[in-house]
Amino acid sequence: MQYKELSKDKLLHEKELLQSKFDELLLKKLSLDMSRGKPNSEQLDISAAIFANIDCYTKRVYKDNFDLGNYGLFSGTTEAKELFSELLDIEIEKIIIGGNSSLHLMYDMFSHLMLFGNQDSEKPWCKLEKVKFLCPTPGYDRHFAICERLGIEMIPVSINEFGPDMDYVESLVKEDESIKGIWCVPLYSNPDGFSYSNDTVKRLANMKTKASDFRIFWDNAYAVHHIYPNKEDSIENIIDLCEKYNNPNRVYMFTSTSKISFPGSGISAICSSVDNIADIMERMKYQTIGYDKLNMLRHVIAFKNKEGVLAHMNNLAAVIRPKFEIVLKQLEIEITPLNIAKWNSPAGGYFISFYAMNGCAKRIVELCQKAGVKLTPAGATYPYRNDPNDSNIRIAPTYPSNSDLQMAMEVFVICVKLASVEKILGE
Amino acid sequence: MQYKELSKDKLLHEKELLQSKFDELLLKKLSLDMSRGKPNSEQLDISAAIFANIDCYTKRVYKDNFDLGNYGLFSGTTEAKELFSELLDIEIEKIIIGGNSSLHLMYDMFSHLMLFGNQDSEKPWCKLEKVKFLCPTPGYDRHFAICERLGIEMIPVSINEFGPDMDYVESLVKEDESIKGIWCVPLYSNPDGFSYSNDTVKRLANMKTKASDFRIFWDNAYAVHHIYPNKEDSIENIIDLCEKYNNPNRVYMFTSTSKISFPGSGISAICSSVDNIADIMERMKYQTIGYDKLNMLRHVIAFKNKEGVLAHMNNLAAVIRPKFEIVLKQLEIEITPLNIAKWNSPAGGYFISFYAMNGCAKRIVELCQKAGVKLTPAGATYPYRNDPNDSNIRIAPTYPSNSDLQMAMEVFVICVKLASVEKILGE
Repeated sequence: MQYKELSKDKLLHEKELLQSKFDELLLKKLSLDMSRGKPNSEQLDISAAIFANIDCYTKRVYKDNFDLGNYGLFSGTTEAKELFSELLDIEIEKIIIGGNSSLHLMYDMFSHLMLFGNQDSEKPWCKLEKVKFLCPTPGYDRHFAICERLGIEMIPVSINEFGPDMDYVESLVKEDESIKGIWCVPLYSNPDGFSYSNDTVKRLANMKTKASDFRIFWDNAYAVHHIYPNKEDSIENIIDLCEKYNNPNRVYMFTSTSKISFPGSGISAICSSVDNIADIMERMKYQTIGYDKLNMLRHVIAFKNKEGVLAHMNNLAAVIRPKFEIVLKQLEIEITPLNIAKWNSPAGGYFISFYAMNGCAKRIVELCQKAGVKLTPAGATYPYRNDPNDSNIRIAPTYPSNSDLQMAMEVFVICVKLASVEKILGE
Repeated sequence: MQYKELSKDKLLHEKELLQSKFDELLLKKLSLDMSRGKPNSEQLDISAAIFANIDCYTKRVYKDNFDLGNYGLFSGTTEAKELFSELLDIEIEKIIIGGNSSLHLMYDMFSHLMLFGNQDSEKPWCKLEKVKFLCPTPGYDRHFAICERLGIEMIPVSINEFGPDMDYVESLVKEDESIKGIWCVPLYSNPDGFSYSNDTVKRLANMKTKASDFRIFWDNAYAVHHIYPNKEDSIENIIDLCEKYNNPNRVYMFTSTSKISFPGSGISAICSSVDNIADIMERMKYQTIGYDKLNMLRHVIAFKNKEGVLAHMNNLAAVIRPKFEIVLKQLEIEITPLNIAKWNSPAGGYFISFYAMNGCAKRIVELCQKAGVKLTPAGATYPYRNDPNDSNIRIAPTYPSNSDLQMAMEVFVICVKLASVEKILGE
């Protein structure tokens, strides 16, 4: 029963059925939230069981021969750098350990670039008439919000299973000096769950840019956030590649343990060339007395090494895998036969990216809202909140309980169907 | 034996004696550090004994009815706000709890003002031809470093036991629109240990400023950092006074637990009018996912309330009081009779401010350095590192052990005498 092949009468009948189901939903007065990529309390309890028994206070001196409870060790502790070094395959000289929010590191980087530029800039970006950034879309709303806030013009670039459209990216950056960088979530992209191909990463590292101070913001937010054992995506080491292709300072990589230990109480890292690290440290010394070293220590004690992190992530994946399956199964059963939408089945990350029929996303989110199911606002995954097709909806399955999620998805599919029928009927 | 009253022969003889004592010191190959206001390990162990037994992970839901281990509660936890509210006598609506560094909050505030200005600004400060800040001197080097970094012109204002020279401050701010603010460490000022009088605080809150967007950066770093029981200084509540005098948005107050719990692993706060708090939150939402709520919880469990903080600070004061006394006693015995310097005996804070004969500070610091005693660089307490009298030296007694400190002070007084004799001899 593909909707688009139904006669008008049958469609009107279907709409009536859906409307009555929807009206029943309203009576349930639900209050469910699938809007943000938040871990659920079961995940947090798994982390809590490890962290609750850690004493990072009594013994505070380790490899750095330095009391980690005092001022100093500005770029972070050696042990924490070693942990990220092993996880990301990056030398510790290229790592600064940050605070509880990699977003904060990214914003600070932008704010620094606006006020000062980088080593390769002629002047601060705020003194330029125009600064533009490439934004693979759909993408992460908070990346786009930083650009919008700072008056940086965003240029959407489409993304597919191999990463951003590199022909388009290369053609833009080689011509336009005002394009100063690109946002990337290279592994399990937000929201599509795409992982950039080796060729894409190489082209990003190697491409010619008109702007000498061009920078890639490489948000490696989901570096170890696999959902299925033995089905892990991986990406090339872009820092090494930038070096190899003689653009050593091109990339700033960010990551954090927000979705490994605790969102808001984790540690973060910025990784880059030795030159860039020195440039960032020079700025940081005006900005802060350094980041929380006892929390770095706590994380090292908790996870020990890469193996420890991966084992922990397996335990978390066991909690969120069923949630992804609830969403995918419901879509498969209820939506696939109707041929009115498509979606991705990511191997990692926090989202399922759903593409409704063009012109339906806002209506679906609105219907869900009415029925008590909160979704990420339609358009949020696009620069200026403008999805030209009004199609993409980011589904965040992790936060609700399994039973809540099941209920939320029952609401969702009814709303998708109803909006689609309305659309086909031209309402 | 006042040096200035000695004959040239006697001075030359004294110099010879001092030189031979100094040469003996060189043989000891000392390595002692009195350069920064760092707590010593004994203080940190007192905090560690409290924090080591705290579990902030297993139970994570309190007054906010919110899992403190997850994203959210952007302005901080209710309990942490209540703790600072009680300590500072400020309503919780006027408080945001920050991360591990109040310096970071200050820098971010400046960076925001440069890029956007505040609610009362006509344009971002970086778009103005000139931005000036008043800097009571001597003052905190890291405050001045922020201004210098951002290209903000610093105007020195002298400070005395009542606070900044308010006649001068008032005369400047009423005439010059480019003066956008003033740095203040109102309680136990860094380095002098002065606490602003009620009259000074009132005048700061009430004065007419030509700049409509004038702001006071009120660094309340030593809010509960008393050295002597029953000899506590206190200051007027400037937020209330600004409101009373109809300049409600004039002041940003900063504080932290860096020298209460752990430097680098504490929590901080920014307090201001409800309007300013809203303005700051509006900016923060682009910048961060919020600060570390589990660390806020940890601090609340550790200290419970104001009484708990004050009892803990008494324990810390018992450790640092003898250190201040070692410095003051050595100065009293060795320097007072010679009439070649003056210094303050603060009732709180982290420093003793030493004023050598004009033209001697750099030489004293250099001599100490040669003898293995590291001091804060001469001039560091002035904008652009320029002490016009080359007189002030900031002594930080807290970090060394008592025996190291005793030795460092023996070096210090010999270097002070030697530099003074050289000066009087016109060398």
